[in-house]
Amino acid sequence: MKSIFYSRFFILLPWILIVIIVIDIDTKRLSVRNTASFYLSRLGNVQQRQVVRTTRTSSSSTSGSNTTSPPVIYAITPTYSRAVQKAELTRLANTFRQVPQFHWVVVEDSNSHTELVSRFLARSGLRYTHLNVFTPRRFKRTGMPRATEQRNLALGWLRGHCASKEKGVVFFADDDNTYSLELFEEMRSTRRVSVWPVGLVGGRRYERPLVKKGKVVGWYTGWKADRPFAIDMAGFAVNLQVILSNPRALFKRRGAKPGMQESDFLKQITKVEDLEPKAQNCTQVLVWHTRTEKVNLGNETKRQQDSVFIEV
Amino acid sequence: MKSIFYSRFFILLPWILIVIIVIDIDTKRLSVRNTASFYLSRLGNVQQRQVVRTTRTSSSSTSGSNTTSPPVIYAITPTYSRAVQKAELTRLANTFRQVPQFHWVVVEDSNSHTELVSRFLARSGLRYTHLNVFTPRRFKRTGMPRATEQRNLALGWLRGHCASKEKGVVFFADDDNTYSLELFEEMRSTRRVSVWPVGLVGGRRYERPLVKKGKVVGWYTGWKADRPFAIDMAGFAVNLQVILSNPRALFKRRGAKPGMQESDFLKQITKVEDLEPKAQNCTQVLVWHTRTEKVNLGNETKRQQDSVFIEV
Repeated sequence: MKSIFYSRFFILLPWILIVIIVIDIDTKRLSVRNTASFYLSRLGNVQQRQVVRTTRTSSSSTSGSNTTSPPVIYAITPTYSRAVQKAELTRLANTFRQVPQFHWVVVEDSNSHTELVSRFLARSGLRYTHLNVFTPRRFKRTGMPRATEQRNLALGWLRGHCASKEKGVVFFADDDNTYSLELFEEMRSTRRVSVWPVGLVGGRRYERPLVKKGKVVGWYTGWKADRPFAIDMAGFAVNLQVILSNPRALFKRRGAKPGMQESDFLKQITKVEDLEPKAQNCTQVLVWHTRTEKVNLGNETKRQQDSVFIEV
Repeated sequence: MKSIFYSRFFILLPWILIVIIVIDIDTKRLSVRNTASFYLSRLGNVQQRQVVRTTRTSSSSTSGSNTTSPPVIYAITPTYSRAVQKAELTRLANTFRQVPQFHWVVVEDSNSHTELVSRFLARSGLRYTHLNVFTPRRFKRTGMPRATEQRNLALGWLRGHCASKEKGVVFFADDDNTYSLELFEEMRSTRRVSVWPVGLVGGRRYERPLVKKGKVVGWYTGWKADRPFAIDMAGFAVNLQVILSNPRALFKRRGAKPGMQESDFLKQITKVEDLEPKAQNCTQVLVWHTRTEKVNLGNETKRQQDSVFIEV
């Protein structure tokens, strides 16, 4: 009698343990879900989150993606040395760190990688590629388009390093704008070229593509409404395959008129009627064209000097 | 013979399953670890991450913390209606969402909760408290200290809602500054009042407390060096118990001189020699006093008007 009891006990015990463990897993899985993905899930936009370890070399990092995972967002950020640079990159990285399947292409306007940006990127926790190209001094005048060389270098890098069938979306993310997380989930489904409103631009609260029956039919803008694409750099994304299949599409230096960079580039790869409106038919502002004040360093040379060097 | 084989098989099978399940849990736990905490872990500052569900009412949210978890950081953010407000709050929330054990106390300069801020906070994914108090018009002149009423209301809220033994750290987080994640891990260990450098302030690249043998002995500042505490609002944190045990410590309106808010407040609760230097003896800049440009809305009333209302 006793032996039957024991044998049944020892057969049942492990099964009970299995049930307890399985229930425990489910509870824990819920609690480790992080706030950012919880936040996105509440917006109904959960994408499979893939943890990305820092990749310092760029070439190897792209080959790893497979065709079943969601498209990688390649954000191209031109940047240049100035007092607020590290601050800007810091809050940008704080946002980007919460975007799944994200690859940051940072292009410095410099003759070589600066120590500040190299160190910053290595510690950022983001998958990234670090490039640099110096803008010739003759192009650094007021009224001239900015960051042309940097954006073109990034496009060249994509063409040289992305597999011909890789799923990806390319976005030009200037380093002083403000980005919501929702923006990236909107642009992720870009089939060719997608567009959406941009806040605080063109002397208005926002600019946006005007949409009728799911098609872009015009532009709500405060400035140069006759541009073919009256849109800010932060207002569109391009499917990676469109970038790869139009190898000569670049931002123009020669003949470029102020404020025409976006139009000049977009008309090489798409037509207005083919644009895909995002953000609820272009009625939501998910990105803002913020500008950071130039810092007053008037007291830098006055009074006592510090005894140590501190990176800012 | 066969029956012995079967009985052994059925006794071993569940144990094998248990081993497989346990191994599986460990692997999955690793992969769900999010980038933000991975990022922090690489900096050697991992704090136990606790997922916080959005708490709309404030009073219930604070009582839940127990004494074994790390102190909650109460960030007090005064804010006011302007074109860039939602953009500023967006990038701030993007940063704060990655800070474990965080409670955002947002105080609007308004007669009632605005719809924009209410909606924004409800969707932020952060634990928060939403307060408001209108600054009398006579205090809104140039040269007058700003956000005094808002910070004092938040201090009053803390005193009314935090348990007398609750572990917490209070920090004044203005809505246009730039915060690194490391900053919050530095301030979390504040025993009474901690201090650190602030970037881009006082007309200099940075200001900082000067430290000798672990004690603050002076101030590196570009401006009014004779202030008792020559430090910006973003340069210090206070243990919650210090706030609770000094119920009359507030920011002054009457008799306050421009730029003296911090000194006037700190001298009510601490002495210079008791300050705790953070950020490697005040040699690292982890927060930046960035200022966002006022937006030009000059074209807002020109040309066509939009047919829909869009929140910016």
